Amino acid sequence: MVVSQEVGVQIGVLGTGMVGRGLATKLAEAGHAVCLGSRTANNEAATKWAAGIQRATHGTFADAAAFGELVINATPGAASIAALTQAGVDHLAGKVLLDVANALDFSRGYPRLFVCNDDSLGEQIQRAFPAAKVVKALNTLNAELMLNPGGLGTTDHALFVAGDDPAAKAKVKELLRSFGWTQIHDVGGIGGARGMEMMVIAWLGVMNAVGSAMFNWKVVTKA
Amino acid sequence: MVVSQEVGVQIGVLGTGMVGRGLATKLAEAGHAVCLGSRTANNEAATKWAAGIQRATHGTFADAAAFGELVINATPGAASIAALTQAGVDHLAGKVLLDVANALDFSRGYPRLFVCNDDSLGEQIQRAFPAAKVVKALNTLNAELMLNPGGLGTTDHALFVAGDDPAAKAKVKELLRSFGWTQIHDVGGIGGARGMEMMVIAWLGVMNAVGSAMFNWKVVTKA
Repeated sequence: MVVSQEVGVQIGVLGTGMVGRGLATKLAEAGHAVCLGSRTANNEAATKWAAGIQRATHGTFADAAAFGELVINATPGAASIAALTQAGVDHLAGKVLLDVANALDFSRGYPRLFVCNDDSLGEQIQRAFPAAKVVKALNTLNAELMLNPGGLGTTDHALFVAGDDPAAKAKVKELLRSFGWTQIHDVGGIGGARGMEMMVIAWLGVMNAVGSAMFNWKVVTKA
Repeated sequence: MVVSQEVGVQIGVLGTGMVGRGLATKLAEAGHAVCLGSRTANNEAATKWAAGIQRATHGTFADAAAFGELVINATPGAASIAALTQAGVDHLAGKVLLDVANALDFSRGYPRLFVCNDDSLGEQIQRAFPAAKVVKALNTLNAELMLNPGGLGTTDHALFVAGDDPAAKAKVKELLRSFGWTQIHDVGGIGGARGMEMMVIAWLGVMNAVGSAMFNWKVVTKA
């Protein structure tokens, strides 16, 4: 798999919300062929999205997963396992599955995670789809910045990746670097998703503190 | 309460581990009068510590809490409620209680928190000692850097504070600024401790990634 802009990759993006469409748009603009997948074949947002963008198609979760050499889970965390099940275990087998979802649950009136601490959404997905190569990344920042690190006026800030398959992580890092990311901290196996997902509760607190979602973490090491 | 170096404050530090002694040393060096509190009056580490440092005394948790205008909880998270109970509810009433502890539990062979997500150690402490003014801070970084932000060769990195009492938070921020901290993000009421404490799982992952505990978070906002 080559992920440079010269030779585009076929990417299936699952989820037609702000995150899914945002990622799909950036990926198509960068020269990749993107199929945006949704629960139904005639999803209005996906149809509208695909009509306006080159190298863009849309279809069901299964269509998108079958299309992708790399598949991105950009569905809401609470719906991710169901969406990936619809996408089809066979369509995910052997592929890099980039999981950007968060286990957020707002049903109790405050932000919490429906899984954390002793498990994570990334791990749940890896267990449910053992033949997929799950890589957790991009869940720690605002959708607008995910493939646009320069959106902060500097690229001096960080991403994190976790996953059990080193080659799959390498491919995701290559893809991320092609979008300008320079600080990518590899926090180990898919168990590293726990910390990455738990950071999101801190992220929401900082969002209130700085009054904007346009910020990101950086890891400052000893100069 | 004035926390400048010119007029020192009486500070009780609960906990004689690396964090407690590290904080107590820095505070005493900065001109504050510090009483280091431990479970027993004749704690060896505390006795040795106090002998070598100006403006330093030691005693029981109750002695230290009675001494302090400001009290710092630097005990292990799992022992904090018991230590603060020994310190005495009356000795904490009306005072700023700076809680730097983490809810870490290594008993299962991997780092986890014994409370998180729907609650936090900071909130548990505030509920157990309602007359204390609990401020969560300094739990998100290595003890060596807590009162020594320049230890990274730059002070361009961040702290977080949470607490229900604005005046108490202001006092803690003033103390932190006196040690060189310039980026202090106020994440709201003591409920903000949830995110701050959950970040610690991510911190451990990053520690493995960068191969050192000498790092800290920064919040990069739009330039």
